[in-house]
Amino acid sequence: MRDVAIIGIGQTKVGEHWEKGLRHLALEAIQAALRDAGTERVDALYVGNMLSGELTGQEHLGALVADFAGMRGVEAVKVEAACGSGAAALRLGYVAVAGGLANVVLVVGVEKMTDALGPEATTALAMAADADYEAGQGLSFVAINALLMRRYMYEYGYKKEDFAPFTINAHANAMNNPYAMFHTRVTADSYAQAKMIADPVNLLDSSPVADGAAAVVLAPATWARRFRGTPVRIAASAVGTDAVALHDRRNPLVMEGATLSTQRAYQQAQAGPEAIQVFELHDAFSIMAALSLEAAGFAAPGQGVRLALDGEITLQGRIPIATMGGLKARGHPVGATGVYQVVELVQQLRGEAGANQVPNARLGMAQNIGGSGATVITHILERMD
Amino acid sequence: MRDVAIIGIGQTKVGEHWEKGLRHLALEAIQAALRDAGTERVDALYVGNMLSGELTGQEHLGALVADFAGMRGVEAVKVEAACGSGAAALRLGYVAVAGGLANVVLVVGVEKMTDALGPEATTALAMAADADYEAGQGLSFVAINALLMRRYMYEYGYKKEDFAPFTINAHANAMNNPYAMFHTRVTADSYAQAKMIADPVNLLDSSPVADGAAAVVLAPATWARRFRGTPVRIAASAVGTDAVALHDRRNPLVMEGATLSTQRAYQQAQAGPEAIQVFELHDAFSIMAALSLEAAGFAAPGQGVRLALDGEITLQGRIPIATMGGLKARGHPVGATGVYQVVELVQQLRGEAGANQVPNARLGMAQNIGGSGATVITHILERMD
Repeated sequence: MRDVAIIGIGQTKVGEHWEKGLRHLALEAIQAALRDAGTERVDALYVGNMLSGELTGQEHLGALVADFAGMRGVEAVKVEAACGSGAAALRLGYVAVAGGLANVVLVVGVEKMTDALGPEATTALAMAADADYEAGQGLSFVAINALLMRRYMYEYGYKKEDFAPFTINAHANAMNNPYAMFHTRVTADSYAQAKMIADPVNLLDSSPVADGAAAVVLAPATWARRFRGTPVRIAASAVGTDAVALHDRRNPLVMEGATLSTQRAYQQAQAGPEAIQVFELHDAFSIMAALSLEAAGFAAPGQGVRLALDGEITLQGRIPIATMGGLKARGHPVGATGVYQVVELVQQLRGEAGANQVPNARLGMAQNIGGSGATVITHILERMD
Repeated sequence: MRDVAIIGIGQTKVGEHWEKGLRHLALEAIQAALRDAGTERVDALYVGNMLSGELTGQEHLGALVADFAGMRGVEAVKVEAACGSGAAALRLGYVAVAGGLANVVLVVGVEKMTDALGPEATTALAMAADADYEAGQGLSFVAINALLMRRYMYEYGYKKEDFAPFTINAHANAMNNPYAMFHTRVTADSYAQAKMIADPVNLLDSSPVADGAAAVVLAPATWARRFRGTPVRIAASAVGTDAVALHDRRNPLVMEGATLSTQRAYQQAQAGPEAIQVFELHDAFSIMAALSLEAAGFAAPGQGVRLALDGEITLQGRIPIATMGGLKARGHPVGATGVYQVVELVQQLRGEAGANQVPNARLGMAQNIGGSGATVITHILERMD
């Protein structure tokens, strides 16, 4: 097995791109990543996407994007793991390069959601849940997270407003990210007044439906210096799974898939949570941020919200999260999100995060989650120099 | 890179399984494959599927199937490449084992199509084509194949009835396959009288919409003898792509993606068409069988139909195809098809194909195609002993 480096990154602004299709968004991110790497040659393309069929009537994105990006003929495939599709594609790209079956691999995550009506997007997103036993009974993703958040508040004695720091932090960080969907500060007051969607989840606990694409270029670490970008090594790449339906889990407040995925990653990287300086986690809802911090070992069960209340998740805190806005404020184009997280982590490790730079960041973690914790893909990245 | 062997195979009968869901079909094939291999331990699961979201409202099949098959926690992901999804999943499983990132990998292809109404299935299948420039203009997959078949007849001077041998051969071979959807002989007369769907494609030129699942277990070739099944080596695994839209190809009658994919496979296996004794090709429509034979080097351009007319595609011919019924008569549950082809090829190479056994078969090829030739995945398999 070979060490693998990320030699190029690219992203589009997250938002409502009514004038661009899936292929155009993907192309924009791909071109930026190849330019950043200083290469045009690619051995294989992995496309992370969840809902192109349901929302735009287009499957077969591997060949479609390869051709549109001027790579007709190249090996290409689409990878799907619900909202974890982006990092799942990166995981497969990593496997190909680490195992020596490809040298330069392009991974792009892309999603186009805003052409659909709101109810259509909600129905499509529910396909990440169990169709027979959850979605089929009318349980949407907001509803699933409302159940989780209510149970968490009940078990650990938190109040609704205790979750505000997650949103306040994400929106504050997004102010300095030109690619973020929202550039609006959130305060404790505006959080308290936000419209309720599924009690206790309000509008400011929820990441937005959005369009976007992000891409990374992988190569063997020994090749990395031939390319333009500051290389960052993939120190770990791991996947853990759990039951898709919430009621099939042993304890709904313990994401065992996330624990498994993180433990596997820590073992590969030979590092634990104490060594991680930045954590791009999957804050699709505030409650998911809390549960992720706990599953990854940054807080004991029930202490994820406490960590946020103590200010430890900000850029100056013990473990900065959502450093460029996170899913909440950068936006959550579902199949692209996992690649955005990694692009932003690379920005941090290269020292290119501008006003949001975490000082001396050398080791960071990105974690992308499908469903309410059923597929969890973790990558640990390390600056090479 | 390590040699990879197929150590277990399993399949469900192809048909209309109204009493079984996606997860039940997948489980049945998985259990059969694990029993055949004599193992329960698996490092990763790759699920090939195209239309679970569109037709059953369920995405996220990786985690869902892993959990239902009793493998909660294992690395799992869904892979999509239109009707090539099954072999695309096998390709990724191969990459993981060959590269040393996993030892025992389970690959399952599954599709559940018959709960949807006919027009729904046709619309869903059109997502393999270009949504903006083909499907969006009303071009279904039958229509695309009708255009190809008419052009072929015009360019090379064939009559409609010249295509009959493909269907007659497939249905004759399916008679002896208990897993096949159809057990009905087709004659030149019944072919001539078949209902026209999109002139010149009639009902007997078209593979059926169906439900089904097939699975294979992979392991390093050096481990193969520890397991129960007669091992078969993967001598080559390759992918080639082309433009998705037919009008973007240089010549619609030349499947450049198939040529690329096959050439890459021949190079890996260090063997050419003359050494291949069985060819499980992608006969979704009669015209696709002809074009596949030509792209893989078994016939010159325009001579694929001639090869069939000369009887060379039967079990006694130069290059037997659709030996267990092919897509036409075994059935075409789209995301499962590529795995069915490989399961059947393994039956041939193990000498377990019963009345349909190709004598002394040691080297065979399976080729799975997404869209009208935009993603082509080729595997060459060799009997180990």
